[in-house]
Amino acid sequence: MTIRLPHHGWLFDLDGTVYLGEALVPGAAETIAALRAAGRRVAFLSNKPLSTRADYADKLTRLGIPARADEVITSSIVLARHLQRLDAGAPVFVIGEPPLLGELRAHGFEVRGDARVRWVVIAFDRTFDYAKLNTALQAVRAGARLIATNPDRTCPTAEGEIPDCAGMIAAVEAVTGHTVEVIVGKPSPIILDVALQTLGVAAGDCVIVGDRIETDIVMGQRLGLATVLVLTGITRAGDPRIAELRPDLVVPSIRSLVG
Amino acid sequence: MTIRLPHHGWLFDLDGTVYLGEALVPGAAETIAALRAAGRRVAFLSNKPLSTRADYADKLTRLGIPARADEVITSSIVLARHLQRLDAGAPVFVIGEPPLLGELRAHGFEVRGDARVRWVVIAFDRTFDYAKLNTALQAVRAGARLIATNPDRTCPTAEGEIPDCAGMIAAVEAVTGHTVEVIVGKPSPIILDVALQTLGVAAGDCVIVGDRIETDIVMGQRLGLATVLVLTGITRAGDPRIAELRPDLVVPSIRSLVG
Repeated sequence: MTIRLPHHGWLFDLDGTVYLGEALVPGAAETIAALRAAGRRVAFLSNKPLSTRADYADKLTRLGIPARADEVITSSIVLARHLQRLDAGAPVFVIGEPPLLGELRAHGFEVRGDARVRWVVIAFDRTFDYAKLNTALQAVRAGARLIATNPDRTCPTAEGEIPDCAGMIAAVEAVTGHTVEVIVGKPSPIILDVALQTLGVAAGDCVIVGDRIETDIVMGQRLGLATVLVLTGITRAGDPRIAELRPDLVVPSIRSLVG
Repeated sequence: MTIRLPHHGWLFDLDGTVYLGEALVPGAAETIAALRAAGRRVAFLSNKPLSTRADYADKLTRLGIPARADEVITSSIVLARHLQRLDAGAPVFVIGEPPLLGELRAHGFEVRGDARVRWVVIAFDRTFDYAKLNTALQAVRAGARLIATNPDRTCPTAEGEIPDCAGMIAAVEAVTGHTVEVIVGKPSPIILDVALQTLGVAAGDCVIVGDRIETDIVMGQRLGLATVLVLTGITRAGDPRIAELRPDLVVPSIRSLVG
């Protein structure tokens, strides 16, 4: 059994890389197990703020990859930690779903339902509506600042793509005339910094494995990680950006990392 | 009694020009009555797709300016007429409120609740939500085109500004990656063309009276109408754009048009 890269830290994107919906990518469990058996450190990254870290860990464990909540980094936890550094304990209004609200409360923020806040947090929110947009507008007019979880246009699901956080961000920016100050999710270095801290491994000794060349690979290259593009998700083999951006490895799937 | 401009056609913006919320601007009824008594033709223009033309006519009549529905031009009626020329009878999905849906049905369009449509119509919609955003996305992915009523960021109300159509447009554009093809409301020449047809008066023989220099005045100048800026609404006397764009008349209020 050989591992194709010598790095100690391994960051894996989830959907499209480790699993597709409810099915593990063939060989994913064996690859992760082999890396761990060889003493490598593993963590998982997701831009989706719709589930808690425990939910993700449970899903991985159920599918055959034992995982703890603290091995999962989501845009929710990263937003909560980043905002803690900017304005700990601040009152916030959240365009988002319950797992994000829970994460913010757990980090000491006062999550409010009205506009008397210092921040409006914008996330992928399947319960987004006009009332939330109006509260965001009133909050910004009273001086609140804008921060968001992730920049994705759409989210792939078993039933096709559905609107993601870019829709909520665009609506709020258009009516307020203000731009979101920080988007913490991929491809922001902010989420990668949290992941590297979690692993306790320096960027140069770390690999990021993902299926999206414009987020996973671009972000990894910016911070000096080794980059591995898998072709089990969004990016296809013929994509011209592969020749342009040249990930360190391009492999058919996660299975090819260990042989 | 003298009328300060010799033109035969007179177009009046409503909110901020003729009335403020539920109160007529002092002198508005007398000015309109004097114009009509002198044989001038009068019509009213609004970007708001939240009420029917009959609603606006009723409100004007109630406030003291007798008006018929066909003297009121809203972005809803203009959208319905414009889309009739582009694709009469098409199936449409509407992000909008009941008065707009009614106007589209009255013009022969098939208003659907699903994504099997040729057009997504985007309007100021206080019932906008994620489900509508998702239907718009699915429709566009299946080939539907985008058209919108009005480009306003916010709408002034007695309780302050609330999100207007720009929020809905931005959300749909962000998740679909497509741009709205046509926005028919002010400052588009499309709404002004419909108004001129309604009046039966050539542009050069027509005046537009409004409180927003960036919509009413700019639009009027583009099509060669005489322009009158009133200072009872959004634009203030010290606004630097007044010196730059030079409306034909700048008056304290609609009352000053007849003396």
